[in-house]
Parts: sequence; C-alpha cells; structure tokens
Amino acid sequence: MKHITLACGNGASENNALIQNVFFKAFQNEILAQNNDSALLPPLGKMAFSTDSYTISPLFFAGGDIGKLSVCGTCNDLAMMGARPRFLSASFIIEEGFEVEKLEQIASSMREECAKNGVLIVTGDTKVVGKGSADGIYINTAGIGEIIYEGLSPQRITQGDLIIVSNSIGKHGASIFAQREGIDLVSDLASDCASLFPLLQSLFDTNLEIHALRDATRGGLAAVLNEWAMASRQCIQVQQEQIPISDGVQGICEFLGFEAYALANEGTFVMALPSTQASTALDLLRSHPLGKEAQIIGEVNAQYPSKVVLQSAYGTKRFLDMPSGELLPRIC
Amino acid sequence: MKHITLACGNGASENNALIQNVFFKAFQNEILAQNNDSALLPPLGKMAFSTDSYTISPLFFAGGDIGKLSVCGTCNDLAMMGARPRFLSASFIIEEGFEVEKLEQIASSMREECAKNGVLIVTGDTKVVGKGSADGIYINTAGIGEIIYEGLSPQRITQGDLIIVSNSIGKHGASIFAQREGIDLVSDLASDCASLFPLLQSLFDTNLEIHALRDATRGGLAAVLNEWAMASRQCIQVQQEQIPISDGVQGICEFLGFEAYALANEGTFVMALPSTQASTALDLLRSHPLGKEAQIIGEVNAQYPSKVVLQSAYGTKRFLDMPSGELLPRIC
Repeated sequence: MKHITLACGNGASENNALIQNVFFKAFQNEILAQNNDSALLPPLGKMAFSTDSYTISPLFFAGGDIGKLSVCGTCNDLAMMGARPRFLSASFIIEEGFEVEKLEQIASSMREECAKNGVLIVTGDTKVVGKGSADGIYINTAGIGEIIYEGLSPQRITQGDLIIVSNSIGKHGASIFAQREGIDLVSDLASDCASLFPLLQSLFDTNLEIHALRDATRGGLAAVLNEWAMASRQCIQVQQEQIPISDGVQGICEFLGFEAYALANEGTFVMALPSTQASTALDLLRSHPLGKEAQIIGEVNAQYPSKVVLQSAYGTKRFLDMPSGELLPRIC
Repeated sequence: MKHITLACGNGASENNALIQNVFFKAFQNEILAQNNDSALLPPLGKMAFSTDSYTISPLFFAGGDIGKLSVCGTCNDLAMMGARPRFLSASFIIEEGFEVEKLEQIASSMREECAKNGVLIVTGDTKVVGKGSADGIYINTAGIGEIIYEGLSPQRITQGDLIIVSNSIGKHGASIFAQREGIDLVSDLASDCASLFPLLQSLFDTNLEIHALRDATRGGLAAVLNEWAMASRQCIQVQQEQIPISDGVQGICEFLGFEAYALANEGTFVMALPSTQASTALDLLRSHPLGKEAQIIGEVNAQYPSKVVLQSAYGTKRFLDMPSGELLPRIC
C-alpha cells in the first residue's frame, strides 16, 4: 500500500494493518505491544501532563519534520515543569491519499526523538479524513512526565533575578517562513527544533535554584517575557545586544520587517534565576551542544511593574509588547 | 468576537483571550487555573492512559456533539481497562472562521460530560488552521485514569465464558449515517453516545469476576468479538435473536443493506465473564439507565478457534467476520 485510504481509519482490518506496519514497528515497546484500549502504566510520583496538536506546514523542514516536532514539543513542555518525560500518546489525523512512505519517515523521526528523551509512546489513535478535510497530516501528542525538580513558577520571579536564554532566538520561525515563502537568503538557516530535557537534566541534578523556565514557542521570547512580567508583577529589562540572534535570522527579519523577539522557537528556553546561580547555570548550559549559545540577556527590577523593557546598545529604552495578530500561522 | 481568526492560534494575546473566555470558563478547576506549560498532577497508583482524536461529521448529532463524544470516548477507553477517569487533556484544531458560539456549545458539552465521569480537564492546546485545512473542528483528548479493577484482558477469555452486550447495538453508526444522508425514517433514532464509567462502577465495586471488557466503537460488535476470538484463540458463538437491535437501527440497516454488527457504538460495551457471574452482572447493568437493554448474547466454546460464529434463530450458522473496508468515514 502506497497511499492512505479511508479504510485505514475504520477501526478494523485495514486500520489494524496500518497501526501494526507503521506505528507499532516504529515505536515498539512492551506497553504498546499489549495493544489495549488504554496503556497500563506503573504508579508514578508527582506528575506533569501536557498536550499539543501539531499542524505545521510544511511537514518536512530544515532541522526537522512534524514527527520530530510532535515529540520534542510535548516533551519540552514537560521538561519546563521540572519533569522527566516518561510516556507519550500519539494520535494521527491523516488526509486520504497521504503517502505511506512519508508516514513512515515521520514515525521514524518520532522514534529517534523519543530515544533522546527516554520516553515511550504507549498508546495512540489513527483517524483518516477525506481529501480536502486536512492538510496532509496533523499529529497530537500528550505526555506524562515525572517531576524531578520542584517549585518552578513565574510567580517566584523576583527583583535581582537574571534572565538567561538557552540559544539564539527565532530560528524556527525564520526558517519555516523562509521555506514557505521560497526565500533562500542563507543556506545554513534551520529550525532549532530539539528536545530540551537532556540539556536541562544537569541543571535539575545539581539542584540549582531556578525560579522559572519556559520554552519560547509560539509568540517567541516576547510572549514568554510578557507572561512572566505579568505573572510576577515585576519589570523584566533585557539588553538588546545581549540577545543572541544568528545572522541568518537577522537577515530574514530585515528582509521581511519582522523582529526576532516574536518569532517562534522549538528548542530554546528562557530561565529566571537568582544572580548567584547564573554563572553555574551558564557554564552547565554551554557545556552541552544545545546550549552553547546561551546568554544572560537581562534582569528583573522594579522600574515598570508587569512590563518588559528592551534597552538598546545606545541606552534608549522601549517596551517590548506581547505579540498580537498572526505573524505566521501553522508554525507548530 | 463571533468567528475564530488565525490570530486565535498565535500563542499570544488573541490566543490567550480565546483560551480564557471559552475554555477556562467552561472547564474551570484549580489545576487548569495554574495555566502552566504542563498541568501538575498528584501521584497516582497504577494508571491507564489513552487518547483519541475526534473528527466526527456532523459536529452536532442526535444524542450528542463532538464535545460530548470527545470526553466520553476517551473516558470509556479508560473505563474499559478498569480505571476511574481522573484527568484529561483537550486539544483543539479549529478551522478559521468557525463560530465562537458553536465552540462554546462544544465546550459546555465537554464540561457536562466531565462532571458525569468525575474527570478534570487540566491541560490543553488550541491551533487554528486556514479555511479549507480542516472541517470545522477536530478535538483530541488524552486521559489518565487510576486503575480500580485489575486483570481485564482478552487473553483471559476461556471456554464456558458468557458474552454480555450492555445496550442495543449500532445506534451511533445508524443515526450518524441517517443524519448525514438526510434519511428520516424514524424520529427516535439517536446515538448511544454516553460515559460508561458510571455504569461499570458497581460491577467493579462488587468485585465481580470479569475477564474482558471493550466498548464497541469503530468496527462495532463484530470487530470486538473478532479481536477477542483471535486474542484468546477461542470460538465466540453468538445467538442472532439475543443481540439487541432497536427497530430504528434495524430499519436503517434494511434500508441501506448494512448489518448492525459492524456499526459503531459510543455508549455500548461487550463483556466476557464466567457463567456463574453473568446473572449478577446482568442485574447490576439493568438497574442503571444506560444498561437496561443489556443481554447475554452468546458463549465461548472450542468449535472454531479464533473465529466468531453467528447462529440464527433457525439454527443455521455462519462466521461473523472482522469488518473491512470503510462503511462510514468520520464516525467518531
């Protein structure tokens, strides 16, 4: 079979064949193999639980594909709560006529990304909708993580905290945009799409004091900082020249009149922590391939409560607002 | 705002407004209100974990809507493993232009159905895709349940077991089909869409010995019985005249040349248990509004291993095969 048919979603023979030949083959593990209505899981301590549906277009992009994204996106949401990703569900809405070969590629990316997180796909679902009722494939994953680091909360952000970003910003948004629009300014522009638990684990393990942690996905750095400023009622002041932005991203932004602050990331987090902890955190982050561009970008103070202030190299200041409108639909 | 715009999926202002005004309002609970990347959950004992994406068309049907279905479908999968539904995630893929009023209706149905299950929606996601990239709305739910009854498995089905069906069959499939095709043969035809944990709880609590339990969704009764026959390598023999089928469903089937055995159900389960347990089970089921049509429909024997045999009132026999092909896409 080369293309998905409506019968592949019928809950019977063809559906079982698709599940066995593509998904079970890629995701194999003992829990999934029991093939029950629900997966049976062992007891866990305190847990994190998260879900995302992935509708990204194009399905395959520089730096990843919808399969990789659907695993790292949800695992990252768990990691941001101090949790070790343990179990995932995976649910597919597939458009009639979708190529089975592409589906196998997507499942294979998911398997690889699961291995990086040490997470198992234990339950799933497949629906097939008629031609024109979806755009290729949408994937939902829901994840269960076990809390290994407690107390992360934007409410804990306080004056004197420093703000660290783990990576140069805007790579996911800029590269998806460039690819979708057929812009080929820079050849090395690629999404930062990556699983962040392996990068964070050493920080959790050394029991560093971290106040807040969030991956800067839709809405980018600007959305995270604004949410934090509002939740903590503090002023977050960032230094423009400290915020890492690659030449490729900068080029796309200048070309299209965007700001990198509002562009989506898929392998980049923001962290608030006491200044005493910052250099240890930075060292740990930079010692990992995913964190080598990590930077302290600003601090928390009392100047403009609930606001984010961007200070330029020339000393001028402006508010960095919560993004609004839709810059780029179907970014994730 | 009357219609969903692409900006409602941007991860920033408009997205937050939609989440607050529609979803948080409908689903309110303390865990959800923390509004983190992931929900924080307390430790649980052995768990069941399940997911389904719902793509049903039409979105509103006799007996329910996609919201009700998205909660009972996933909670039922948990209940079938002996679990009490505890926590749900809810993820929405919404087509640009979808009416906010309909979304509110769907969220309100979800809230009602959650209450019946005693389950909380604790985390979620909203994506908006452009016009023509989805058909109104697709919903994914993933659920975590706590196991309160252990040992359910088709492998435990053994000779002498009786097979009970909890409800007359085929109502969901027949009513969706009738509505979609504009057939109005019978006015009281409605989906059986319902949450089954409340019906099962008394059976779990009295510690009745149940070998296997499954809700007969896509593929209907025929798919469940065939999966069980194959998993247990036993022969399942059912009596045609014992299988409850309403006049309305029978009418649609005769009109369209279907068999009710392969039609989907959304509030009907099949149960295999030792004959000594059957009358107690039947009494408990019939004492609940959702189980008043429950029937013993057959038995497990050694005649044709891994096969399902349907015996007519006249004593003739035939194999009831695993359904194949796609009778009716987007049934759930």
